[in-house]
Amino acid sequence: MAEVKIPAPAQGEVLVRNLWMSVDPYMRGRMNEGASYIPPFELGHPLVGAAIGQVVASRASGFREGDYVTSMLGWREAFTAKAGAVTPLINFVHAMDVPLEMFLGPLGVPGLTSYVSLFRIGKLLPGERVFISGASGAVGSFAAIVAKSMGCYVVGTAGDETKRAWLQSELGLDVALNYRATDFEQSLKNAFPEGIDLYLDNVGGEQLRMALDLMRDFGRIIASGMIDQYNDVAPRPGPANLYNIVTRRLRYEGFIVMDHFDLTETFQRTAAELYRSGKLKWVHTAHEGIASAPQALIDLNSGKASGKSVIRLGSSK
Amino acid sequence: MAEVKIPAPAQGEVLVRNLWMSVDPYMRGRMNEGASYIPPFELGHPLVGAAIGQVVASRASGFREGDYVTSMLGWREAFTAKAGAVTPLINFVHAMDVPLEMFLGPLGVPGLTSYVSLFRIGKLLPGERVFISGASGAVGSFAAIVAKSMGCYVVGTAGDETKRAWLQSELGLDVALNYRATDFEQSLKNAFPEGIDLYLDNVGGEQLRMALDLMRDFGRIIASGMIDQYNDVAPRPGPANLYNIVTRRLRYEGFIVMDHFDLTETFQRTAAELYRSGKLKWVHTAHEGIASAPQALIDLNSGKASGKSVIRLGSSK
Repeated sequence: MAEVKIPAPAQGEVLVRNLWMSVDPYMRGRMNEGASYIPPFELGHPLVGAAIGQVVASRASGFREGDYVTSMLGWREAFTAKAGAVTPLINFVHAMDVPLEMFLGPLGVPGLTSYVSLFRIGKLLPGERVFISGASGAVGSFAAIVAKSMGCYVVGTAGDETKRAWLQSELGLDVALNYRATDFEQSLKNAFPEGIDLYLDNVGGEQLRMALDLMRDFGRIIASGMIDQYNDVAPRPGPANLYNIVTRRLRYEGFIVMDHFDLTETFQRTAAELYRSGKLKWVHTAHEGIASAPQALIDLNSGKASGKSVIRLGSSK
Repeated sequence: MAEVKIPAPAQGEVLVRNLWMSVDPYMRGRMNEGASYIPPFELGHPLVGAAIGQVVASRASGFREGDYVTSMLGWREAFTAKAGAVTPLINFVHAMDVPLEMFLGPLGVPGLTSYVSLFRIGKLLPGERVFISGASGAVGSFAAIVAKSMGCYVVGTAGDETKRAWLQSELGLDVALNYRATDFEQSLKNAFPEGIDLYLDNVGGEQLRMALDLMRDFGRIIASGMIDQYNDVAPRPGPANLYNIVTRRLRYEGFIVMDHFDLTETFQRTAAELYRSGKLKWVHTAHEGIASAPQALIDLNSGKASGKSVIRLGSSK
């Protein structure tokens, strides 16, 4: 934690006070060395993540005091930056008076990640059989809601009984399972007597292995993350049943949401419609104050968070 | 080996004498129990595989004595069958007077397998960087020839120095490597300083792991088989670096050639053009007589065959 002086905005700059910061699984990946799709965090520098803030002072055209903006400028309570470094939060969804922090969850990048998984990559059709691991998380829960809303059969997993029960009773999944239960593999088989058309894989590891044995011919496995392995010190062997990819003609495909920001507005229309109809159940784990951020990230990566993890830094003015 | 009496053809039947039988990697897979894309071989029944034969007697319209036909009726020297069980071998490629047995190789199903891998599944573009494992085999060698002919950079592997040298000097690959060499992994890295766009994976195992670490963003891994693992008694762990599928946005897709027979004619036009221009180098391992078939299959699965493995049963009349 460091205290810095925030300069007054120069011409073309805005001064922003953050209200909410996002805590996301990918942040753990950025703590590893080595080349990846996004540079690793640097020691001595603030962690970088999405935030929603409010303009306190503006010397940039198009930004007025009180405007809401999103940014990716590091975990901090306030900052001064060029106007180009922030994105105004003005659209038809915001006009619906949704809680601001939902723009870090189902109405933001995690929601878009689900949307890209299911549709652009997964080419999901109404009525298909969908398996979602990590279904109580920010990405998984929105995917489950969207898939259910279009008449799919949806089975999801979570790591404890509270989350499992929430998936079943609140989200209305067809089957919700605790992947830590001793009979989990058999329960998953029972849940898919006719196999899986689309597996949205947020975790990797053992659930990927089990899914490979349950995929239907021409099934799709969409890899949005592998939270199960982010804390591994040594690489863990992959599943021994990859040959199913040949015999069942599977497509196993990964993606990075940054490549798909062009879909944001289309996705937000879907999310807004779900919100309007009362189907968009939103659960989040909110921590208070910037000092809570490190523990929030640790909790998220050890399965202790439900839904989207966020840090509240202040209230709207 | 069993001797049976071949009945004279009844109305609507043909009597065929086989001239060539095909020996293919997938046959090993059919010796395992359990459900797959194709039923396992049954004990006490003949092995089933592709064959080319000549009609000896016909009581079916459209078939005359001397016609060439392909069939999938089991390893046998002759048979009587309904006309619907055989396919006449009459097309523009045959008119080019190519060796008959090539219809079991680059002009047949192995060639089509390469074609589907590269184009329908792999969506290969001219100039891309291609890695082919098992490049001296029936599928790999045709893929290498086609990819080279369209200006791709092609690196292929084989399991001994003779085959490696053939890939380099006869097929004209940019780099040919022996995967059994002690410095193989480093040589593969050196061969792809800018990474791999498309990996045609005929083998699985260690070469898949190495390729995963060399794939470029948005690369495609096309799984046409896993000959490396067909003889495994216990399942072997998969690669520990599957997370590259997410970070590099990879697509890893399998297929079965039977689903793509609609492409046969389009593919054969490509093969015929390559043959006409002298680019279609054809290497095969020919065994003599039906008694040689079991050893031919063992040799193929232990890396002792070069190119397409076939059994010669007789000569055209």
